[in-house]
Amino acid sequence: MGFPGYVGRSNPAFCLYDMELLERNITQYGQVIGTQVLKVDGFLNHKLDIRLLTQMGKDVYEHFANCDVNKIVTIEASGIGYAVLTAQFFDCPVVYAKKRGASNQSDGVYTAKVHSFTHGDDNVVAIDRRYVGKGDRVLILDDFLAHGEAVRGLLSICEQAGATVVGVACAIEKGFQGGGDSLRRDGVNLYSQAIVDRMDEHEIVFRPQN
Amino acid sequence: MGFPGYVGRSNPAFCLYDMELLERNITQYGQVIGTQVLKVDGFLNHKLDIRLLTQMGKDVYEHFANCDVNKIVTIEASGIGYAVLTAQFFDCPVVYAKKRGASNQSDGVYTAKVHSFTHGDDNVVAIDRRYVGKGDRVLILDDFLAHGEAVRGLLSICEQAGATVVGVACAIEKGFQGGGDSLRRDGVNLYSQAIVDRMDEHEIVFRPQN
Repeated sequence: MGFPGYVGRSNPAFCLYDMELLERNITQYGQVIGTQVLKVDGFLNHKLDIRLLTQMGKDVYEHFANCDVNKIVTIEASGIGYAVLTAQFFDCPVVYAKKRGASNQSDGVYTAKVHSFTHGDDNVVAIDRRYVGKGDRVLILDDFLAHGEAVRGLLSICEQAGATVVGVACAIEKGFQGGGDSLRRDGVNLYSQAIVDRMDEHEIVFRPQN
Repeated sequence: MGFPGYVGRSNPAFCLYDMELLERNITQYGQVIGTQVLKVDGFLNHKLDIRLLTQMGKDVYEHFANCDVNKIVTIEASGIGYAVLTAQFFDCPVVYAKKRGASNQSDGVYTAKVHSFTHGDDNVVAIDRRYVGKGDRVLILDDFLAHGEAVRGLLSICEQAGATVVGVACAIEKGFQGGGDSLRRDGVNLYSQAIVDRMDEHEIVFRPQN
């Protein structure tokens, strides 16, 4: 296991990662809009800070290193960069679910309906049946975890496929929207790299994690 | 320049890349539909082969290593994985243009209209003005190059932003659709890792490259 070309453990530049680095980026570059929206376009989902995402990927790897992950599943588009850089450490492929509007036709795909609280509508997400199945040990990854709808859609797809989900990781959990705690109550092995407990235009308050 | 944690040059597993590896994957896993559509869902744009994409990224890096690239620009969603793994070698950020249907409103973004021959409609793609600008030396990346519409949209955005485009790279050029040769005639420094000159359900024929 592990990315063959990866020497992070012996490279000081790659031993500095802690949750605080991500939290500092959120504090410095995040834009809070109203009370529910946190924009991190500057490093996570429009412009991508590759060094930061690589370090985050290493941290996810260390969290799930003993889980025999053989596939990472995410959703287009904003989860892809984070998932791909994380997958290097697991030395496994990434499969990303595709959004297909409201269309629920199931021509060779597993589908799940995902409600978007941001846009107030439903999307169907789909994964080709050839790319996830029995024997897979899946780590689900997404950039944001809010109400948990996207993750629950991916959990449903993996269940339909007969795959084992060993855990879920997200970069930023909006703790005040409840999706993460709801998943934890359901026994999901969830790792959030930063959890925002409350925020407004003056302040972003993170949940302490050890 | 170069990815700090990257030791590919001294690791035999990462010295095997040649164009043939990509061509072999296309031949083995590609599905030709009709005469115009080539599906490579199995390794490039639904399930992602991270090792292959990393080797392709290294090859792109070697092609443009002397161009002082400081930013990679691509389009969501299928370009992101390829762009991110390539960006590691350049040690630079990725900015991906977002698709926004037919909406051309320009609230703080550069936009370009991109015609899709596959879907027969127009899409507007947009990049926040904060994330590309004067002083940037941009490498444009995309998974497919067909009629060249997406690349021309990104060229237009970079021109609006005053950025310098040092080159364009794509994984697979569908040579018979003319977009690549048209860009070359216009003086664009284009590098296609594999060029399909013709294809049908029996055969995929690649253009020889040296």
